[in-house]
Parts: sequence; structure tokens; C-alpha cells
Amino acid sequence: MPLRLRSIYRLRKAVQNSDAVRWMSSSSFQPNPAPKSQPGQIQNAANNELESDRVVVEIDEARDFIERCLRKLRVSQSHAAQMGDLLVTADHRGHFSHGLNRLDMYILDVKRNLTNLSGVPGIIKESASTALVDGNNLLGAVVGNFAMGVAMKKAKETGVGWVSARASNHFGIAGYYGLQAVREGLIGFAFCNTSPLAVPTRAKTLALGTNAMCVMAPAANGDYFALDMATTTVAIGKVELAMRTQQKVPPVWGVDKDGKETTDPEKIYVGGGLLPIGGLEGNGGYKGYALNVMVEIFCGILANAAFGPLVRPWTNPTSEANLGQCWGAIDPDCFGNGFRERLHGFLNILRHLEPADPSKPVLVPGDPERLHMDKCKRLGGIPYHINQIRHAEEVAQQLGVEPMRTQQ
Amino acid sequence: MPLRLRSIYRLRKAVQNSDAVRWMSSSSFQPNPAPKSQPGQIQNAANNELESDRVVVEIDEARDFIERCLRKLRVSQSHAAQMGDLLVTADHRGHFSHGLNRLDMYILDVKRNLTNLSGVPGIIKESASTALVDGNNLLGAVVGNFAMGVAMKKAKETGVGWVSARASNHFGIAGYYGLQAVREGLIGFAFCNTSPLAVPTRAKTLALGTNAMCVMAPAANGDYFALDMATTTVAIGKVELAMRTQQKVPPVWGVDKDGKETTDPEKIYVGGGLLPIGGLEGNGGYKGYALNVMVEIFCGILANAAFGPLVRPWTNPTSEANLGQCWGAIDPDCFGNGFRERLHGFLNILRHLEPADPSKPVLVPGDPERLHMDKCKRLGGIPYHINQIRHAEEVAQQLGVEPMRTQQ
Repeated sequence: MPLRLRSIYRLRKAVQNSDAVRWMSSSSFQPNPAPKSQPGQIQNAANNELESDRVVVEIDEARDFIERCLRKLRVSQSHAAQMGDLLVTADHRGHFSHGLNRLDMYILDVKRNLTNLSGVPGIIKESASTALVDGNNLLGAVVGNFAMGVAMKKAKETGVGWVSARASNHFGIAGYYGLQAVREGLIGFAFCNTSPLAVPTRAKTLALGTNAMCVMAPAANGDYFALDMATTTVAIGKVELAMRTQQKVPPVWGVDKDGKETTDPEKIYVGGGLLPIGGLEGNGGYKGYALNVMVEIFCGILANAAFGPLVRPWTNPTSEANLGQCWGAIDPDCFGNGFRERLHGFLNILRHLEPADPSKPVLVPGDPERLHMDKCKRLGGIPYHINQIRHAEEVAQQLGVEPMRTQQ
Repeated sequence: MPLRLRSIYRLRKAVQNSDAVRWMSSSSFQPNPAPKSQPGQIQNAANNELESDRVVVEIDEARDFIERCLRKLRVSQSHAAQMGDLLVTADHRGHFSHGLNRLDMYILDVKRNLTNLSGVPGIIKESASTALVDGNNLLGAVVGNFAMGVAMKKAKETGVGWVSARASNHFGIAGYYGLQAVREGLIGFAFCNTSPLAVPTRAKTLALGTNAMCVMAPAANGDYFALDMATTTVAIGKVELAMRTQQKVPPVWGVDKDGKETTDPEKIYVGGGLLPIGGLEGNGGYKGYALNVMVEIFCGILANAAFGPLVRPWTNPTSEANLGQCWGAIDPDCFGNGFRERLHGFLNILRHLEPADPSKPVLVPGDPERLHMDKCKRLGGIPYHINQIRHAEEVAQQLGVEPMRTQQ
């Protein structure tokens, strides 16, 4: 038997004999189950896992804080609430770069009259399975919730819904909209363009956003698949953090002003730019570049919004964003029976593969977020960095709203 | 002005002042125009660019050769013709791994009675915008052409079509189906699972295919965007080639039997496996892993076909493949007016960005294939490697069909 074939047979046998197949029908999908403990032990365990530079805020309180900040700036009640839920969902899932941390950006847009504070998005045109939405320059969550609602409604009617919006604003984590689909038993998609921060393969100047994409799918027993990512290797926030802490970064993160790979975050940040997933061409980064352009096609190009290098800069904006965004939904019940059970089984096969490093279990997309939400549950809230808490205090003072209450 | 902001302004100014904006309305999209020459010079230029180990075969002849091989094995006329067109399209676009090179694999399936040689795929169930197809174990091109046709028909009726098939076989380059959508003025999608060749992030065993995806979109003036790729950093064929030539490979290509990065192709091939786009976790390879799983969800999971590690091995198959595949189409006319012109402008902005290395112009996804097709045009056919030609002679002899005629 050829060597390669032998290794494949070995794998198949291992899979057939292993826990993996039994997991196919298991109801468990805890990638890393919390240790069993007596009630009295839970608080101690939670205290032990809270880093010393973190402060816990109850989820409702974090949501309310964002809402009262925006309300103070005359954002309508419903819109402020939608933004609060969007940003706190990001923090809850461990995507701290896209939660409370981004409140400043939205406040700046509101203060400069660059976004509308009330109103509703409109449908410019539609077919049985599609809609083109005018975001009417409303806040991102408002446009996103409206558009995702339209996509899901059409998916339930025809099997698929695909919606693109122009005149939108930053819509937070793309996963926020995918989750809505999962809750309805649908496969969900979300895409957004952003200000230019990435350098195309072979180029030396910024011409693409971090262009996020999300694909989520519901599985049995509350399980789900969650792809929710930028199409650059990392977000710009990670480069900023490395600069502040004077650390080198992996060479796949970005290039300097000459389009050369660098491990110096400052050279990426000043005059350089982020690289698409994969890094430079020789490492397969042209595939990340293709995905990044794909996202822009679904967003700015499909919706006739700003696109590519023509999107406004991401700092100190002076004009409306006119971002393009896209959402989709597919009803898996239109396909092979037992989709959710099959997906749950597949995810569990992956989770229970033997890890290369025993201390790092194999996860599936969505597990890191699930682990973070489990941690929040044990802590009784979201563990914000102390600097984030202090900054929220300053924001509260500037706006004259009640500060965010932290757990004592 | 902060440094970062200054660099963004510099970019925007550069874009506004540069050729890029003029290219927005240009009808040219030649990434690398052929030099102007007198008619008499063309043949000389073509001869000069033909590598010494290559032999040119006219496109029609290559297509006919594949067709007559399959016909000799009692594959029905229409199915043999569809496979011939599929494989020759791959070679014409420069994807030699997926063209004539794969004929052996299809012949083996046919000889072992693992695929059906005539018949039609069926629709198991459908909604206004979706269909679940039974491939009836027919050859991949037959299932793919049928399913893509259904997806496009539904896209014209409702705006979107999404089709998944079970009981299918290898369908060649995913781009073959995306191109069909582009010709109809539609955005096209295609996805397929494959035998397990890739190692999930953090794991050490094969559990995923190379799971290809294609997204194509039509642009003005005959231009188009073409993402057509495996969701592993490279195809297994590249590893085989590196083994044969005893060359090291980049560390992002694959892992050894312990799940550790390696530059030794043999360690990847024997007991190890390919890595998803990006490489290991620290390089962002978990994003490629997520994309790879996404493709499997659209294929094996959605269609209820074989999936993940349960797909048959890719060498020496003894059972039906039962591959899962997926196709989609979206009508851009349902969205913002001027989609094709806007996309053409965007692609030209990217093409005309200043390259980091002046000898390597910035390309867009689809340009490498376009350059290869231009080369074929100048050469008067497809430049096959001499070993491929010799192997085709052997196949012809074994089957007792007329050998493939080469250009003299």
C-alpha cells in the first residue's frame, strides 16, 4: 500500500474507532467544559480567573451605559439601544476591539453631525430574494438590523435572502447579524467594507479595508458554526497595541512603506499597512487579497456605496461614511434533512481530534467566543481592562451621564 | 495632523491624482498588455516564450482527446464532451493540476465502475431560490453544469439561486461554474469538498479536504473578478512536485505527523498534511481553517453527502465518492445601478497601484489566468509539459484511441 494511502487509512480508522464518531450523536459541544464545582466554589474560581488589570461590569449595565451616552447626544431611544446591544455583544464574545472601545468613534460621528440620529432605512428596490437598502446614513446597528431582518424574511419565503446597503455606518462585529440568523435557524452572512487600512498583494499603498466577513450556521443542541473575521491577518488595533508595548509582530501582519514585510509595528502603522490573510504573495496572501476584494464587491460595488481607497479615512472623519454592507440568509431546511444534527456531529469530530499540543484543544470557529461567554457567566459580567473602565469614566464626565457601574 | 492620518491623506491624494481614477473609465483591463508588433513578428515572439520542455496542443484537439478517451470507456457522448471542456478550460486558464493531468483519476473511477456513465441529475426538492440536487453519481462536470444551470435560472427569476448536490464526483476547477455565471451577467459561486488532505488548526491528523471555493463577478468591457482557490495554502500537487525535485517548501504549506510546521515536503505528504490558508494558528491560519469548514458546510453538510474525514481517500478509491458540492448565483441588476462599470473601475484602480517590485505589477484575482489565456492565444494552443504529452500518448495507447495531435 503506498505510504500516503496508508496514512489516510490510518486516519479513517482512527476516526471510525475514536470518540469522534460517538460525539456525532452527543449532545455536548463544550470545547473545554468548566470544571464541576460546588456552588460555594464558583465565586472563588471566578475570582481566580479574573486578571488583576480587569474590572467586571454586568452586561445590562454596560449596555445601558452605551445607551445613555448616545441618548445624551440626542440619538433616538431605539437607535441608542440597538447600538448598546451591538457593542456589548462584541465585548461579551471577547471582541473587545469592536465593543465599548469603539464608542468614541460613534460619538465623534454623532457630534460632528456625520450620522443621522433618528429615522428608518428604506428599500430602494427589491425582488423575491433580494433588496437594495438605503441606510439613510443611520447608525450601523440600525441599518444592519433592518437589512438582516429583510434578508431573513426573504430566506423564509424563497430559501435565500441577499441584501446590500449603501449610506451606512460602521456596523460593529459582522457576527452580530450572523447570530440573528442562527437564532432563526438560518445560515447567516454579513460583510462590510471599511476605511483603507490594507495593502493589496504586490502593492505598497493602502487601497482596501479590513473588509470583514461573517458566515454562521445553526447546529443541534444550541451549537453553531461562527466564522467572523477581518480579511486581513489582524485588525489594526493589534498593531496599535504592539506599538504601545514596543513589541515585534509576526511578519505576516503587515508591510512598511515600500511594501516589504516587517516585524516593526510602527512601520506598518505609519506609511505601511496591513496584509490580507496569509501575508505576502509567497505565503499565499493572494488568497486573502482575493477574499478581501470579494467582500468589497458585495459591499461598496454591489450597493453603489464608497469603495476601496475611496472610503473616507478611519480617523478624524469630516464627511459621511457612506459604507457599503451586505447580509444574506439561507434556509438549510431547503436542503438535506438533518442539517443541524449533521453540522453538530461534524463540529464535534473536529473538536475531539487529538491536538498537536495537548494544552491547546482543537476548537471550531465560534468556540473562542463561546469560551469567553462562559467566562463572563462565571464572572457575572464582562471583564473590561481597567484602562477601558477609566476611559468610560471620562466619557461619562464629558457627556454628563451617570458613570458605568462596576462590580465591587 | 497625526502621522497615521497624514499617510491616509497622502494615499487618497495619490489615488485621486493618479492614473487610477482615469482608469476608472478606461476600457482597458490588460494587466500586462502584449507588446505591439508587426504580424510577422508574432510567431517569433510566441516561439520565444515557449519553454523548451513544453509542447503546444490546439484547444479543440485537447478537448477532443479527452472526449475520445472517455467515449472509448463507454461514457455517453454528452458527458464525455462536458468533461473535455471542463478539463481543457482548467489547462487554458493555467490550472494544469486540474486539467488533462486529472484525466487518470476520472478514468480510474470509470474503469472501476465507481461512477455512472449516462443519465441525468435529479432535483430532490426545491424552493423559489434553492434546489437540492441528486448527482446520481454522474461525472462531476455533468452534475455541476446541471446544478449551476438551476442556480442561474433561479437567480434570473428571484435574484438569487443556491443549489447543493450530493452523490457527485470531482467537478474540476470551481471556476468553471463561476465563469458560466459571469457569461450570463451574474455573480457566481461554487464550492466543493474533497478527500481529507488538510489538518485543522491545532490538530495533527487529516480531517478536512482542500475544499475549494469560487466567487466570480462580471465587470464592464469583458472584465471580471475571479476568485478560484483551495482553502489550503496550496494544493497537494505542489507538495508532490517539491518532493520529486527535492526542494524545501515554505513553512506555511503543511505540517508533519506531529502537527508541527515543516519545510520538508515528504513530511507533509507522509503522515502530515496541508495547512489551511495562512498556515499555523499564530500566523492567522485559523481564518483559513474557518473558511475550509465553511466550504464543507455548504457541501457535505448542506447536501447530506460525505463530509470531512469521512470522505473516501483520494488515491486508490474503492467506493463511490458521494461528494457534496454547492453553486450559487446572484443577479447584480437587483442592486445598485452600474455594477459592472463600478467593478471594472475598482479592478483597474487596483491594477494600476504602484507595485512594491516594479517587475511584478499588481494583479487582481483572475489576471494570472487571463495572462495565461493570452499566452495560449499567441502560441495557438495550450503549452503542455512534455511529460504530460508523453503520458497522454500512453493513455491513448492503453485505450486504443488516436493520440493527441501536437503542433509541429
